[in-house]
Amino acid sequence: MSDLSRIGVAIDSKLLEKFDDHIARRGYTNRSEAFRDLIRDALIEKTAQRPDSQVVGTLTLVYDHHVRMLSDRLTEMQHDHYNHVLSTLHVHLDHDNCLEVLILKGKAGMVQKLADALISTKGVKHGRLTITTSGAGL
Amino acid sequence: MSDLSRIGVAIDSKLLEKFDDHIARRGYTNRSEAFRDLIRDALIEKTAQRPDSQVVGTLTLVYDHHVRMLSDRLTEMQHDHYNHVLSTLHVHLDHDNCLEVLILKGKAGMVQKLADALISTKGVKHGRLTITTSGAGL
Amino acid sequence: MSDLSRIGVAIDSKLLEKFDDHIARRGYTNRSEAFRDLIRDALIEKTAQRPDSQVVGTLTLVYDHHVRMLSDRLTEMQHDHYNHVLSTLHVHLDHDNCLEVLILKGKAGMVQKLADALISTKGVKHGRLTITTSGAGL
Amino acid sequence: MSDLSRIGVAIDSKLLEKFDDHIARRGYTNRSEAFRDLIRDALIEKTAQRPDSQVVGTLTLVYDHHVRMLSDRLTEMQHDHYNHVLSTLHVHLDHDNCLEVLILKGKAGMVQKLADALISTKGVKHGRLTITTSGAGL
Repeated sequence: MSDLSRIGVAIDSKLLEKFDDHIARRGYTNRSEAFRDLIRDALIEKTAQRPDSQVVGTLTLVYDHHVRMLSDRLTEMQHDHYNHVLSTLHVHLDHDNCLEVLILKGKAGMVQKLADALISTKGVKHGRLTITTSGAGL
Repeated sequence: MSDLSRIGVAIDSKLLEKFDDHIARRGYTNRSEAFRDLIRDALIEKTAQRPDSQVVGTLTLVYDHHVRMLSDRLTEMQHDHYNHVLSTLHVHLDHDNCLEVLILKGKAGMVQKLADALISTKGVKHGRLTITTSGAGL
Repeated sequence: MSDLSRIGVAIDSKLLEKFDDHIARRGYTNRSEAFRDLIRDALIEKTAQRPDSQVVGTLTLVYDHHVRMLSDRLTEMQHDHYNHVLSTLHVHLDHDNCLEVLILKGKAGMVQKLADALISTKGVKHGRLTITTSGAGL
Repeated sequence: MSDLSRIGVAIDSKLLEKFDDHIARRGYTNRSEAFRDLIRDALIEKTAQRPDSQVVGTLTLVYDHHVRMLSDRLTEMQHDHYNHVLSTLHVHLDHDNCLEVLILKGKAGMVQKLADALISTKGVKHGRLTITTSGAGL
């Protein structure tokens, strides 16, 4: 890690108490580490809002593979953007249901649009996109 | 506002600079106020899931694999719960940064707890859990 | 690691020379480690030939997703054996071609049969099954 | 599919009988499809032997993650070649043993060398590389 700054932060005592409770339950042993994670989270959120910024996205899809042509359609949509789909992990949850996780990379606007198109495909039961970054500079 | 506590937080200088930039553009005139908002956000973001319901979760982690023993530690934590970690997809984003996506299955409380433990591990830059279900009954 | 036995092995000098050459090129710095790997390989090969032994298999498939209904068919075959397909990783190689890697677990006979059925599906260009074990006892 | 040639092949009757037996057991319903697969297999094998040809490889590794620093070392080796490791799928087989599947892309010589280095790392119990191609032109 590079050089550290030590700053002072004024926080309402009751709020601090709740926060310390919260981070203890989440397994942090160090309050500064928890603060650093909050800051990174906020920066990533900001990046995701500029449509031209480079992001990495994880898209989770749940669907019933028995829906006719659905696997074919999802595969085709991914191949049309194959240079933005790093890879796809497929888990067969039960006889009917699939969980598919796609790792997407590209401009935030494009990633969001591709995710929206996949989620809204008929037969997809649930979809959720998580935006993150490559981590460079954080 | 009620009584204030003044705490010290150690932050990587470059990260602090970016954060200050970020909050300036968002209109904060006061760094402590920005921190208080971050904390409230984290506290408000509570899972509505009942801890005993069966869920499937996708956990996205970004980390710098150069942090000593980090890969070892993350692997060990996953193996301690190997029957709840269906599989893990790892993409090498660049020379330094890893994106890891874990597919978790089990009771919501356990999945959340395992995710929290992994996200709060020192060296993990960003983590986000997406909860879904097996899709059965949807 | 458990206790080591030190054994003597008689080898034709020329054969040994070739072997040393071979393992040097493969990056081994230690001849015994190379021998242990050979032994494990042979044991796994043997295990794979008993149809009732528990194995883990990695099946690599290359196919053109444009072949009508092929994605649907492959997904369906996997779901019919969903408790034996741990997970599937899909990489979009180019606009046409997919690489799919399946991790299979079960009795050697069943794993081989499922792999054969997938490889022989019309439209699959190349398929290869690698049998290994859970590693327990090796 | 492109246009088909129909060729005659002379085969010893007994050999053909064994071959028909073999492909029936592997699930082929069509002898020509089985022949095409054999031809593709042979071409891929040949490609893999020219160190400068572009290939895709699937590397299967089994290891005990308890071996100190092993996860760290394997991750680091992969990042040193991150532009050749498309992605890595990790399955936690039991409390001790990991199965890791890497998808590699690049020149055959480089892919083979990276695979050899990973397989020969102390603590890796079993490793096997499967070479294939992107499928373009097959």
